[in-house]
Amino acid sequence: MRKCAVMVVAGSRSDLQVMIETQKTLEWFGVTNEVVVASAHRQPDRVRQLASKARERGVQVIVAGAGMAAHLAGAMASHTTLPVIGVPLATEPFGALDSLLSTVQMPRGIPVGVVAAGSAGAVNAALLAVEILSIRDASLARKLEQYRKGLRGNRAK
Amino acid sequence: MRKCAVMVVAGSRSDLQVMIETQKTLEWFGVTNEVVVASAHRQPDRVRQLASKARERGVQVIVAGAGMAAHLAGAMASHTTLPVIGVPLATEPFGALDSLLSTVQMPRGIPVGVVAAGSAGAVNAALLAVEILSIRDASLARKLEQYRKGLRGNRAK
Amino acid sequence: MRKCAVMVVAGSRSDLQVMIETQKTLEWFGVTNEVVVASAHRQPDRVRQLASKARERGVQVIVAGAGMAAHLAGAMASHTTLPVIGVPLATEPFGALDSLLSTVQMPRGIPVGVVAAGSAGAVNAALLAVEILSIRDASLARKLEQYRKGLRGNRAK
Amino acid sequence: MRKCAVMVVAGSRSDLQVMIETQKTLEWFGVTNEVVVASAHRQPDRVRQLASKARERGVQVIVAGAGMAAHLAGAMASHTTLPVIGVPLATEPFGALDSLLSTVQMPRGIPVGVVAAGSAGAVNAALLAVEILSIRDASLARKLEQYRKGLRGNRAK
Amino acid sequence: MRKCAVMVVAGSRSDLQVMIETQKTLEWFGVTNEVVVASAHRQPDRVRQLASKARERGVQVIVAGAGMAAHLAGAMASHTTLPVIGVPLATEPFGALDSLLSTVQMPRGIPVGVVAAGSAGAVNAALLAVEILSIRDASLARKLEQYRKGLRGNRAK
Amino acid sequence: MRKCAVMVVAGSRSDLQVMIETQKTLEWFGVTNEVVVASAHRQPDRVRQLASKARERGVQVIVAGAGMAAHLAGAMASHTTLPVIGVPLATEPFGALDSLLSTVQMPRGIPVGVVAAGSAGAVNAALLAVEILSIRDASLARKLEQYRKGLRGNRAK
Amino acid sequence: MRKCAVMVVAGSRSDLQVMIETQKTLEWFGVTNEVVVASAHRQPDRVRQLASKARERGVQVIVAGAGMAAHLAGAMASHTTLPVIGVPLATEPFGALDSLLSTVQMPRGIPVGVVAAGSAGAVNAALLAVEILSIRDASLARKLEQYRKGLRGNRAK
Amino acid sequence: MRKCAVMVVAGSRSDLQVMIETQKTLEWFGVTNEVVVASAHRQPDRVRQLASKARERGVQVIVAGAGMAAHLAGAMASHTTLPVIGVPLATEPFGALDSLLSTVQMPRGIPVGVVAAGSAGAVNAALLAVEILSIRDASLARKLEQYRKGLRGNRAK
Repeated sequence: MRKCAVMVVAGSRSDLQVMIETQKTLEWFGVTNEVVVASAHRQPDRVRQLASKARERGVQVIVAGAGMAAHLAGAMASHTTLPVIGVPLATEPFGALDSLLSTVQMPRGIPVGVVAAGSAGAVNAALLAVEILSIRDASLARKLEQYRKGLRGNRAK
Repeated sequence: MRKCAVMVVAGSRSDLQVMIETQKTLEWFGVTNEVVVASAHRQPDRVRQLASKARERGVQVIVAGAGMAAHLAGAMASHTTLPVIGVPLATEPFGALDSLLSTVQMPRGIPVGVVAAGSAGAVNAALLAVEILSIRDASLARKLEQYRKGLRGNRAK
Repeated sequence: MRKCAVMVVAGSRSDLQVMIETQKTLEWFGVTNEVVVASAHRQPDRVRQLASKARERGVQVIVAGAGMAAHLAGAMASHTTLPVIGVPLATEPFGALDSLLSTVQMPRGIPVGVVAAGSAGAVNAALLAVEILSIRDASLARKLEQYRKGLRGNRAK
Repeated sequence: MRKCAVMVVAGSRSDLQVMIETQKTLEWFGVTNEVVVASAHRQPDRVRQLASKARERGVQVIVAGAGMAAHLAGAMASHTTLPVIGVPLATEPFGALDSLLSTVQMPRGIPVGVVAAGSAGAVNAALLAVEILSIRDASLARKLEQYRKGLRGNRAK
Repeated sequence: MRKCAVMVVAGSRSDLQVMIETQKTLEWFGVTNEVVVASAHRQPDRVRQLASKARERGVQVIVAGAGMAAHLAGAMASHTTLPVIGVPLATEPFGALDSLLSTVQMPRGIPVGVVAAGSAGAVNAALLAVEILSIRDASLARKLEQYRKGLRGNRAK
Repeated sequence: MRKCAVMVVAGSRSDLQVMIETQKTLEWFGVTNEVVVASAHRQPDRVRQLASKARERGVQVIVAGAGMAAHLAGAMASHTTLPVIGVPLATEPFGALDSLLSTVQMPRGIPVGVVAAGSAGAVNAALLAVEILSIRDASLARKLEQYRKGLRGNRAK
Repeated sequence: MRKCAVMVVAGSRSDLQVMIETQKTLEWFGVTNEVVVASAHRQPDRVRQLASKARERGVQVIVAGAGMAAHLAGAMASHTTLPVIGVPLATEPFGALDSLLSTVQMPRGIPVGVVAAGSAGAVNAALLAVEILSIRDASLARKLEQYRKGLRGNRAK
Repeated sequence: MRKCAVMVVAGSRSDLQVMIETQKTLEWFGVTNEVVVASAHRQPDRVRQLASKARERGVQVIVAGAGMAAHLAGAMASHTTLPVIGVPLATEPFGALDSLLSTVQMPRGIPVGVVAAGSAGAVNAALLAVEILSIRDASLARKLEQYRKGLRGNRAK
């Protein structure tokens, strides 16, 4: 893989349909990214490898979106000290109550930063990643200001 | 470790205080067991090793108890094809809603069998393990009948 | 009835439409099974008979799927010491919150192992049953490994 | 047993501590009653016998109080066509959400009438039973009016 | 109005579409009934009159179905000592969680017997009413047995 | 009763212990008030009278606090066109989920304005009442500004 | 802007589709109003300005409707001592549980009066605003009586 | 104020008692920080100033902890493009369900990264902040590895 600032992981192909919003938003900011599908439960070794090699490969922020007993973000976080952003995805019959609690209630010591459920969260995960990158990147900080101005101009579509 | 029929895993030392009920119940049935503390998030490699080597070590059933975003049972299940029984433990402020949904809502392909929250579940996890072992062990099947008779005689304490 | 390793019980004809997934998965593994419809509340005597005669008929694992105040798995478990796997089915207006809590919160002494709600759970109930049977059946253990490999190869559809 | 108008069933000895409120209220009205402990899961045959013989023994209303996956009222109802009143009792960690949904979400065909959770419900179960008996008993109807007057006079303690 | 054994009250015209199931079931048993629409909040005086005059008009059981902050059953119960059966109806966005809790959590002193949410509950409210009437009506008791037999014969559709 | 701007109604004596916070806050603003205990279910006629005569007695705002199936605010609102503020009070085992949903989910046509659960809500109900009165009372508007300044000065105790 | 008695604020253009019900109801009563779209999170300065200048512009009541982490009503309330009515709007996947709790659980000191979720609440917010205005406007009080009479006449559609 | 990498904001003095855990953890890593108390609802202008000036003052990450309708993190986020981490704090009677949903369900465009409720989250918020800072600080990255090693060594206390 090429070197990317943000790695976006979707727990399944159907999760990918939502997580593509993360990629689109990252692209708007010109942030390099890679999108992979990996299931914490069906492909635990793949998840471990992705997470444990991320820092040395130059990844700076990880975004993980999954549904149901959504362990993906937590599993990634258990194998890296890079910041991990979790996106709880909605599935029937519990909406996103299961994925939200499974993603956010991480035990002391292994943090995950969780955004809103579903596509709003997929977009916001990208924005949070860009905010993190903007700490040392004045150009991204300016783009974020511009993006916010767009939100205000749109009178909150 | 010696060869044990049931491996009981607690997600933390405080979880152990509840999961000891599983051990006590297994002992009542004379079922060999081992109790270990391993955190899915703080010690993912330890969890993977415990699970992936369990079958070759002679373990027949795994019981995993954890709280909050309780990934322990699911993480064990992702590394073994032995039956895994999950016990959702209660913590504040979500009671066991977080641990129940995190344990039970496993995706298609990787099953976990979940029992009641807290100490009732810790006991029942042992009983379910004994029931599983009793399929090919007439002596255990008889002991289960005897245990049930005890429950009836006690007029449901 | 012929001798079957797994008995699958659906609480109603509409529940059967989901529980057929359990049968399909068992068939993939070549595990003998029977599927019956029996309601814990409308046919309590039928449920009692099915459960209490299961072991002597050669059944090794029972899977029970029901919705609403889903007592089916618990009612079966109260009449047998065979392992019982519960599948909480979703119905309006409580999704599967009612069936999940009704199935999983069994009192101390009578265990049920509960899988995910709905069709994911129906599949996983079969897999858990196969895992249980695999303890003494090396051939099934190998098939489970093969099934898992398929999940990994599919990159988590 | 002597002939009683109301049979009060508690799912366990600890449930009995709350259900004694039902008896106290029935006594206030001079309604004959019997209180028994019977667990739907640990003593299913006892529950079946209690329910199926109730009408011929002269019982007119059944009150059943239980916690967790509270099947007691539903199990009684499945074996009788007498009116069954369910009292969902509270236990940790789900409060009474589990017992309420397990008691109230009965399938089409087998009714249970459910009152409030805990001791308020234990009292109200008795009052509902008395109301049912009062349909053909003018003396009880008068006592109910008197009881209501007391509530009003107490300015809603 | 003519003399009816059961009064069925729907909180609104849209609630009536579900509560008609109560009437259909009562008709199957040949139980006299009347169906009225009355809103606890929009027509409180009408509700009070319906409830407070019910006993003298010969009504023996009241069934009340409503949604949202469903006060109808409780409001009826506050004006009569006849048994009141509540049916929590489902509406968006809380499903029936709001109507269930609003109907079932009655304070000590004023009982309501609550059945399942939605149309299953509408049918069961009728059956519970018939069970109440059957205490002194052997013919209805026999019809209830026949109805149950039908449920069993149908193998739990 | 003397003429009061705000009528505070508590559903029971125990509810009064929380609702006294409403009175204390009103007193701070020098707003005339009366506190009464009246149960929507045990004293429906008293509630109706209090509500239906409130406007002609000079009451301008009604505050009603109750727990469980909290119909008090809605019952008051059904008998008056004065603004009614509801305070959902907490009781076991549902916390304030039952009282919140019972108070806030009023049907189209009969509004209640609901504040936070428990004592924070009891205080805020008073403040909302004062805000309503301040529309035509510049002196109260100034006192509200002063109160807010106090909150800011306290650095959010 | 012209002088209006009620300011209706929608958190986004999609929220506006529901909040238009508030305006329609206000128009029925002939109450002057203005409807604006302003997002608490995307346009915080706009929200602050709208709220902090409302009283001097002659606004008497503010209605704010928003979904998800619905801060709009609370943000308005933090910048004004005018009465603020909150309408929790429904969005997937949490229905209105998120918007209800976000709107109603305001801390001690800053009140918001919350009505039912969705369109019923949008109508009731207008009615509550009219009730507030009716305290000093006998003509509005009469119109409210007339509106109520309409509800009764319609037999609770 | 001196220049600090992380700004920790508590919504009230009582919230501070939990958020002090964030500071303690930051101190362990030698990360400069400041802790302030500011209420989104009682001190909105203070919150706006803290957030809008944070970047120019050298703050790199903001952590905000609050309870109930917890708008603090979202309010901070609405005034800055720095990464904001939210900690939902628990209060009665809704536990942290209100603060979690109020903090996490941010609308598209304004992200907040949310950690676990209560003190586990307060610690994890610090860790997530350190992870963010570690992207460009190899020394912090090493300390994080050391901290993780400590967690593993402790066998998951």
